Amino acid sequence: MSQPICVINPNSLQNVTASIARAIEPLAPENAGSLQCVTLDVAPPGIVSQRDADRAAPLVAAFIEEHEARFSAFVLACYSDPGLFAAREITRKPVIGIGQAGIAAASLLGERIGVIAISAAGIARHWRYYRALGLERRIAGERSIDLSVAESGDETLALERMSEIARMLRDADGADVIVFGCAGMAALRAKIEAASGLPVIDPCTAAVSFAIARVRDAAGAGS
Amino acid sequence: MSQPICVINPNSLQNVTASIARAIEPLAPENAGSLQCVTLDVAPPGIVSQRDADRAAPLVAAFIEEHEARFSAFVLACYSDPGLFAAREITRKPVIGIGQAGIAAASLLGERIGVIAISAAGIARHWRYYRALGLERRIAGERSIDLSVAESGDETLALERMSEIARMLRDADGADVIVFGCAGMAALRAKIEAASGLPVIDPCTAAVSFAIARVRDAAGAGS
Amino acid sequence: MSQPICVINPNSLQNVTASIARAIEPLAPENAGSLQCVTLDVAPPGIVSQRDADRAAPLVAAFIEEHEARFSAFVLACYSDPGLFAAREITRKPVIGIGQAGIAAASLLGERIGVIAISAAGIARHWRYYRALGLERRIAGERSIDLSVAESGDETLALERMSEIARMLRDADGADVIVFGCAGMAALRAKIEAASGLPVIDPCTAAVSFAIARVRDAAGAGS
Amino acid sequence: MSQPICVINPNSLQNVTASIARAIEPLAPENAGSLQCVTLDVAPPGIVSQRDADRAAPLVAAFIEEHEARFSAFVLACYSDPGLFAAREITRKPVIGIGQAGIAAASLLGERIGVIAISAAGIARHWRYYRALGLERRIAGERSIDLSVAESGDETLALERMSEIARMLRDADGADVIVFGCAGMAALRAKIEAASGLPVIDPCTAAVSFAIARVRDAAGAGS
Amino acid sequence: MSQPICVINPNSLQNVTASIARAIEPLAPENAGSLQCVTLDVAPPGIVSQRDADRAAPLVAAFIEEHEARFSAFVLACYSDPGLFAAREITRKPVIGIGQAGIAAASLLGERIGVIAISAAGIARHWRYYRALGLERRIAGERSIDLSVAESGDETLALERMSEIARMLRDADGADVIVFGCAGMAALRAKIEAASGLPVIDPCTAAVSFAIARVRDAAGAGS
Amino acid sequence: MSQPICVINPNSLQNVTASIARAIEPLAPENAGSLQCVTLDVAPPGIVSQRDADRAAPLVAAFIEEHEARFSAFVLACYSDPGLFAAREITRKPVIGIGQAGIAAASLLGERIGVIAISAAGIARHWRYYRALGLERRIAGERSIDLSVAESGDETLALERMSEIARMLRDADGADVIVFGCAGMAALRAKIEAASGLPVIDPCTAAVSFAIARVRDAAGAGS
Repeated sequence: MSQPICVINPNSLQNVTASIARAIEPLAPENAGSLQCVTLDVAPPGIVSQRDADRAAPLVAAFIEEHEARFSAFVLACYSDPGLFAAREITRKPVIGIGQAGIAAASLLGERIGVIAISAAGIARHWRYYRALGLERRIAGERSIDLSVAESGDETLALERMSEIARMLRDADGADVIVFGCAGMAALRAKIEAASGLPVIDPCTAAVSFAIARVRDAAGAGS
Repeated sequence: MSQPICVINPNSLQNVTASIARAIEPLAPENAGSLQCVTLDVAPPGIVSQRDADRAAPLVAAFIEEHEARFSAFVLACYSDPGLFAAREITRKPVIGIGQAGIAAASLLGERIGVIAISAAGIARHWRYYRALGLERRIAGERSIDLSVAESGDETLALERMSEIARMLRDADGADVIVFGCAGMAALRAKIEAASGLPVIDPCTAAVSFAIARVRDAAGAGS
Repeated sequence: MSQPICVINPNSLQNVTASIARAIEPLAPENAGSLQCVTLDVAPPGIVSQRDADRAAPLVAAFIEEHEARFSAFVLACYSDPGLFAAREITRKPVIGIGQAGIAAASLLGERIGVIAISAAGIARHWRYYRALGLERRIAGERSIDLSVAESGDETLALERMSEIARMLRDADGADVIVFGCAGMAALRAKIEAASGLPVIDPCTAAVSFAIARVRDAAGAGS
Repeated sequence: MSQPICVINPNSLQNVTASIARAIEPLAPENAGSLQCVTLDVAPPGIVSQRDADRAAPLVAAFIEEHEARFSAFVLACYSDPGLFAAREITRKPVIGIGQAGIAAASLLGERIGVIAISAAGIARHWRYYRALGLERRIAGERSIDLSVAESGDETLALERMSEIARMLRDADGADVIVFGCAGMAALRAKIEAASGLPVIDPCTAAVSFAIARVRDAAGAGS
Repeated sequence: MSQPICVINPNSLQNVTASIARAIEPLAPENAGSLQCVTLDVAPPGIVSQRDADRAAPLVAAFIEEHEARFSAFVLACYSDPGLFAAREITRKPVIGIGQAGIAAASLLGERIGVIAISAAGIARHWRYYRALGLERRIAGERSIDLSVAESGDETLALERMSEIARMLRDADGADVIVFGCAGMAALRAKIEAASGLPVIDPCTAAVSFAIARVRDAAGAGS
Repeated sequence: MSQPICVINPNSLQNVTASIARAIEPLAPENAGSLQCVTLDVAPPGIVSQRDADRAAPLVAAFIEEHEARFSAFVLACYSDPGLFAAREITRKPVIGIGQAGIAAASLLGERIGVIAISAAGIARHWRYYRALGLERRIAGERSIDLSVAESGDETLALERMSEIARMLRDADGADVIVFGCAGMAALRAKIEAASGLPVIDPCTAAVSFAIARVRDAAGAGS
């Protein structure tokens, strides 16, 4: 595989991109090319509202259109998967949204998926998406920690609140697996797993792992 | 009612805006203010693809943010309702999407709704929307005439093809009511009704009628 | 439009008919004919039970059969829409049920609909209807004020209880729009909107607005 | 069991009642009382339309109210179960609808239920009912023989057409079990089973068998 | 009917088989052959876990294969219906699962079914089954008494706990009919009915009643 | 990662195990331990019927119970995922079924999943599983090539038939992504992709890729 996989952070926060890059670095295959993370500098600083997601979507599509030839696959590193369906109109290369990938991975480890959202503002939007995907019956519940995207980068602050939310998803909603409803939380994955006793999925690593596997498949196809 | 209702054509085709304006002119209430149609000049020339819809969405939101104080309500005159949920984050005034309004109106005249789409490219996107709204079980089928948005302004060309599609929705899909899956077709409504023998809903007039009723209700509330 | 629209109160309470008539009076279009409210004198005094609804249904059908030629459209002013589907076997003119119209209108202003019912006895019946219509996923919850239909005409008594129920629908069930689950509550609409901070739909005015729009469309068709 | 079970034919056709009586006669338990079939003389001559069903419903309720004390249970011998939910407001004794009972019995013999309807006019009404019951996903399809209720009593005429419909349900719709969508077809059950190779349920005998079992349970409860 | 119906207890607890036999003894028809209960001696002592159900399934199939010619029908007397679909690959004779039959019977007496499970360990498995059957929307809730299968044979111990659970299903989950989520509870049926005020279904007697009716139908077919 | 991942072929065909081993060999991570494929020698020679799947399930559970300590994760290499839920009662280590994993991976590349089954006998069983998982709405269709499991190992024979089925799923059912409904087809993946123009998922490689990613995550958790 000669071309890298492009992981697009569709918000303009460099520290989110950096935390994504750290999380997926161990996944980078030697024989499968490299991973490249990009920040969409003109995008909103965090995808909190529907309007943020709507703003990001055409930027994602424009980026993919411009750089389509350079990459083997694209990962959209925002749980709302902004621009995903438009991107698939632009390229036949794999475009993987972490929202879909997080749900898909969680569905392999449990039956009732609990989602930890950053902000209450996103929950109705996420449910619209679950319904659009026909997956809403797999979601046991979604609850938010109500920290800003920037604050959520503060692991100490986030850890306590996320642990509490994970246990509520488990005990009140009956979740048997947890997925993070945003990018940039990967560093807390093992700790939330310990705090809740449930398997926890970081959607970014799930999406990147899948993209790598898919690109390797495609590469093997030509051999 | 002192403030007008703003009908936003979220594409840049002036002739579509003009046809919308003609269609809704008879609805303009004397005692309920006036209707004002606007074209988003920088928007795509027609919302055909998901990418078109994604491009239009932030433009709709920006327009509403800028002009929010001047209008009593907003109607999004595109069947994909681009930017609808973001708009509701910006204003508490009514924001009515013609996609939702067309389905709602059709649901009052029949049980199985057939949708005539302009382009096959939009059908999967529409189904995602029906599912997101929890309404997919009301849709008997959606079929496209596969004319460009511009061509679809040619009534002679459109009439024959739309009549044929309406009859297919009736006979093959079991529809008992038809809705146009786009703005700008209102002039053909009665003719398609005659051709199919089914009630036919123009989503623009449905949305504008509802917006007028809602604004009147709100005006009455203060009296 | 030369023929009036007939608004049928399918119970025998004259004061309910009167309150409906007051509520819809502002809607009466000068250029679209007049609205005429009728009371079905032999019907039950209020549609509380399933049996009441079952008794009203054939009376509605018989009335429409007898008077079909005189009216341009019919509105069934009971949230259970008794006789709606039979009426459509009798006439091809529009027959609009306020239950369907209330839900349709509410669906244009929010995503999760809360219903205020008069009586707990009707809730299971309403859910059967929501399911029959394929709309149950849009209903966030339905709660009753448990006042008789007659008492519910007492606005002072009803206002406090309805405000409380509206807030429960908002806070416990997550409703973002409210619809009255009966006719005859229109006078309280604005007050419940103020008490809950949510848009509130009176189903009678929603249905009559829609019927007027539909009749105007049909009239325009012949021009 | 000292009280008989009342099987109500909610139409006024005596020959339908007679055919029901013949069908259920072998079920009459010696130690469980007797079965009594009644015809609602003022009911429509066959339940074909929604209006017919609406007319029958209050008659069923009135009959049950008048005779409630004399019977241990009631069976509504019309596939549309007219008046069922109102009847349950009147009595706590079992009221079994053959529509529900036919579907329930079929669901124990197969996974995809095919329904043979007498008339195309009833199919949309039946689907509303399946949805109201939350059972629509079990119905593989419903097809009508399009004979009048009276004609359908002519076994020779009905047999050929029903066999054909049963095979269409099996081959085109994937049904693996068949239920008759009306009362009065029991005499053809074995023949349609032979013609289609699928198990076939007569809803009347299913409902009566269940009612007998339920009454016996209740009788045993007091011992 | 010359051949008996075989009621298979797919666990190895003889006392469960004995309690089933006592429960169904009153159903044995004089003119419809006899009922024979068998215990699968090598099966697990109670079907509590998914693994228990998985172990029982091939034993059920093997038993039916070996004894298929001797019986007119088979009843699987475990609420999880282990081996049901495999059994239908082996024989065309009726194979009735008490899980399906209990739900079917309950659905004829109410709209919202509450299930009393023996053990919390089975609830997720049961929900998988309800979904597989397309019936999950009929289930108001399932709650467990958390007694072992053996303990649950102690009626005194079970009665108090089951009554409490039945009332929780009624009051917290809105159930209007109850079904026992296991075999061997029939002796408590009337008492739980008295304790809850709701109709209560024993799934074994429901299944056996249906099997008898089905076999009688088939016998009548040849006459 | 010191412990290997165990890929269990729950049928007794050594050539199927060998083809699985060849397919997943390129996935074996140097730094993430090795993959070990096992054949369940006493299992049926191919999982065609429900009875085959029922037979395999307890064998899978027994194998995992015996060898649980030796492996980091288990992959069930049969599309019916026999024994999956029981396995999760036995171990908290990841147990990944290729049925679930194939669907999950396909859901990341398209919206409407077409499934190529080996045998028509499995399709109803698969649909039960899709419903049990709440995923049935994602399945556009499933069609079988109707070759025996053994024959399906003959690539020449299988290729032509699978290509035809893939095109039918695309054209008649509207699938936009394909998944193989069995293990052992991986060698044909690229060819079917070429023949259909749709992305094609081999469920074994999807499951193994996910298991590797999950084990790596868990290993990283302790660092």
